[in-house]
Amino acid sequence: MNAEILAVGTELLMGQIVNSNAQYISKRLQDIGVNVYFHSVVGDNPARLRGVLNIALQRSDLVIMTGGLGPTQDDLTKETVAEIVGRKLVLHTETLEDIAALFRRAGWTMTDNNRKQAYFPEGCIVLKNSHGTAPGCIIETDGKILIMLPGPPSEMKPMFEQSVMPYLEQKSPHKIVSTYLNIFGLGESAVENMLMDLIVQQKDTTIATYATDGQVTVRLTSKCKKDNPEDLNAGVEKEIRKRLGDRIYSTGNSSLAEVAGKLLLETNTTISIVESFTGGLLACVLSKIPGISRVFKQGLISYANRRLDKETAIQTAQDIMKISGSDLGLAILGHHDSGENHNKDEYAYIALVTREQNQVRCLEYKLVGDEQRRRNRSVLQALDIVRTYIQENTD
Amino acid sequence: MNAEILAVGTELLMGQIVNSNAQYISKRLQDIGVNVYFHSVVGDNPARLRGVLNIALQRSDLVIMTGGLGPTQDDLTKETVAEIVGRKLVLHTETLEDIAALFRRAGWTMTDNNRKQAYFPEGCIVLKNSHGTAPGCIIETDGKILIMLPGPPSEMKPMFEQSVMPYLEQKSPHKIVSTYLNIFGLGESAVENMLMDLIVQQKDTTIATYATDGQVTVRLTSKCKKDNPEDLNAGVEKEIRKRLGDRIYSTGNSSLAEVAGKLLLETNTTISIVESFTGGLLACVLSKIPGISRVFKQGLISYANRRLDKETAIQTAQDIMKISGSDLGLAILGHHDSGENHNKDEYAYIALVTREQNQVRCLEYKLVGDEQRRRNRSVLQALDIVRTYIQENTD
Repeated sequence: MNAEILAVGTELLMGQIVNSNAQYISKRLQDIGVNVYFHSVVGDNPARLRGVLNIALQRSDLVIMTGGLGPTQDDLTKETVAEIVGRKLVLHTETLEDIAALFRRAGWTMTDNNRKQAYFPEGCIVLKNSHGTAPGCIIETDGKILIMLPGPPSEMKPMFEQSVMPYLEQKSPHKIVSTYLNIFGLGESAVENMLMDLIVQQKDTTIATYATDGQVTVRLTSKCKKDNPEDLNAGVEKEIRKRLGDRIYSTGNSSLAEVAGKLLLETNTTISIVESFTGGLLACVLSKIPGISRVFKQGLISYANRRLDKETAIQTAQDIMKISGSDLGLAILGHHDSGENHNKDEYAYIALVTREQNQVRCLEYKLVGDEQRRRNRSVLQALDIVRTYIQENTD
Repeated sequence: MNAEILAVGTELLMGQIVNSNAQYISKRLQDIGVNVYFHSVVGDNPARLRGVLNIALQRSDLVIMTGGLGPTQDDLTKETVAEIVGRKLVLHTETLEDIAALFRRAGWTMTDNNRKQAYFPEGCIVLKNSHGTAPGCIIETDGKILIMLPGPPSEMKPMFEQSVMPYLEQKSPHKIVSTYLNIFGLGESAVENMLMDLIVQQKDTTIATYATDGQVTVRLTSKCKKDNPEDLNAGVEKEIRKRLGDRIYSTGNSSLAEVAGKLLLETNTTISIVESFTGGLLACVLSKIPGISRVFKQGLISYANRRLDKETAIQTAQDIMKISGSDLGLAILGHHDSGENHNKDEYAYIALVTREQNQVRCLEYKLVGDEQRRRNRSVLQALDIVRTYIQENTD
């Protein structure tokens, strides 16, 4: 099955927002083995939408549309689609009741525009919107599938997961199983080299590597009959884990910050940190983990110019650990942009100290790339030191 | 002139990256009055690229392509375009010399693939790439304009600004002048109400408002003969400034953080901050301003649970000001996610204290929305307090 993702919205063509829906849907379709061949964007203009829709239905088996389902006069996606597929718009009573109930609860008055959201092309499958008022729908027509989803990502994503994924999976006699192994501390070519023989010999499970932001992900994909209870990726995963060991920090979507934060919470380990050139980025990333304030006691950002070496980093980490009364003290120090020219080699120092066994880990490394890359990379490095320390001390 | 932006790249269709090039180019075309009617994305597949190109050249006057100009076998954009417009690929000697020189300097060996980058459709305008090896080009064919640009944004953007914008501006007998006024502290409908009579009566200068992330931008656009030295937006801008006063924090692209940071640097005002529920976001945003470490002395993130009120916020701001020896002390305190249920009303307190005149500004407000929105909004609020304080005390 070949798919096209068609976004409707003038705000995309004006550059006010970026088409992140297309990225999200593309990734998820790939997970279940559907090839995406085209993305298209068109404005809230019936004539041009008609043109784009006709092209999409000609060249693609599955067309997933986002946007244009709102209650305003601009939102003409459903009308145009109904016309193209030759169906009437009919009232969906259940949806009308849902919308009416919502307005009653909020104490608002319903207008004809709101009623409009309860009309759908005859014979379609209506998809409930658990995060907004505009439902989506699926139309099967002439061997093609056309799916309409709301534009706001906060409404589109849950609808896609709850309704569209199960629908598409049920369409296929096969299931595609994807496993993502997330790696820190090894470059993409290093990972490829370590897995080269597996990649060359791949059979039932395909192996792909890709790099993002100083991290590498290995994706394993296998296809099997739906009723096959076996995990076809398990064997290859086991072999890869044997080779890459603790460089694999998570499976699936968990970020390094989520893994480190979860370990701190699960083991009730309190931490305080000092940052210089990362300017609060580590604190900021960590503070997004739900409930983290229970273990993240204090963060300090200081641009004070002192001598930079391993000793200073360890001393700083010990100071913050003692002052804050935390189990762990972490310091990321490094050269920062002082507004002067700096072409010389610049270094960062990351130190983790622990109260319990008075352990110390300290890393010195050369900073490369622009400010943003230096910071991101150093924050990941610090999170990885926390992760490996806790993992090694809790098994 | 109606435009279409056509991106070539399988990584977009796999959801590995988002099409930020389309957003960037759309915004810039709008600035000069070119309407963008379509975005398209297609993979590195000659047959499908041919199909999409034919459609684009039929429905659009200007087609701007990004991606597919690299040296690898995958990169077939130039070959496919040459075929579609019926031109031969010919060697561009200057480009070949540039590439050869680059390889000599780096001590690399040139391959045939690298030579490939020096071939262009006959009769086109070659666009130098100041940030990479793949040049772009402009082809004028059958009353249509086709422009090919490299895919990496770091190469595409400078080429677009240096070569494409002047080319497109020179094509038109008119110039479009756009002025952006950025506003904080007023909602979009409030701004619209305050400018309603101007919006209704708009003539030479069109007025549009849009909201992003708790901020509002008013865009003024006017079109005039190229040789007209007059700024047609000036009159309307003056009137809007009279009404919105210091709620306008910048013109153009400067963010609130950039404006506040620049004011701190220009006036040599040192600052230290304490954050709780924003978890380092303010420090992080501020620390991205080049050279800021000269005036940003210290940041402290503390989740300590103390009584939350205006007095505590002011006391905290005074403490950090004294401890750090800064001119300004800033505190953002507020309820944070402690992992417990919280359905009650939650408040934030932002206090700014100054050493010089012992001035105090303190704001109390109810937190709404999810964690991310609460933080973003509070950080903007804090930056705005810093901005207005410095502006009021330096004129």
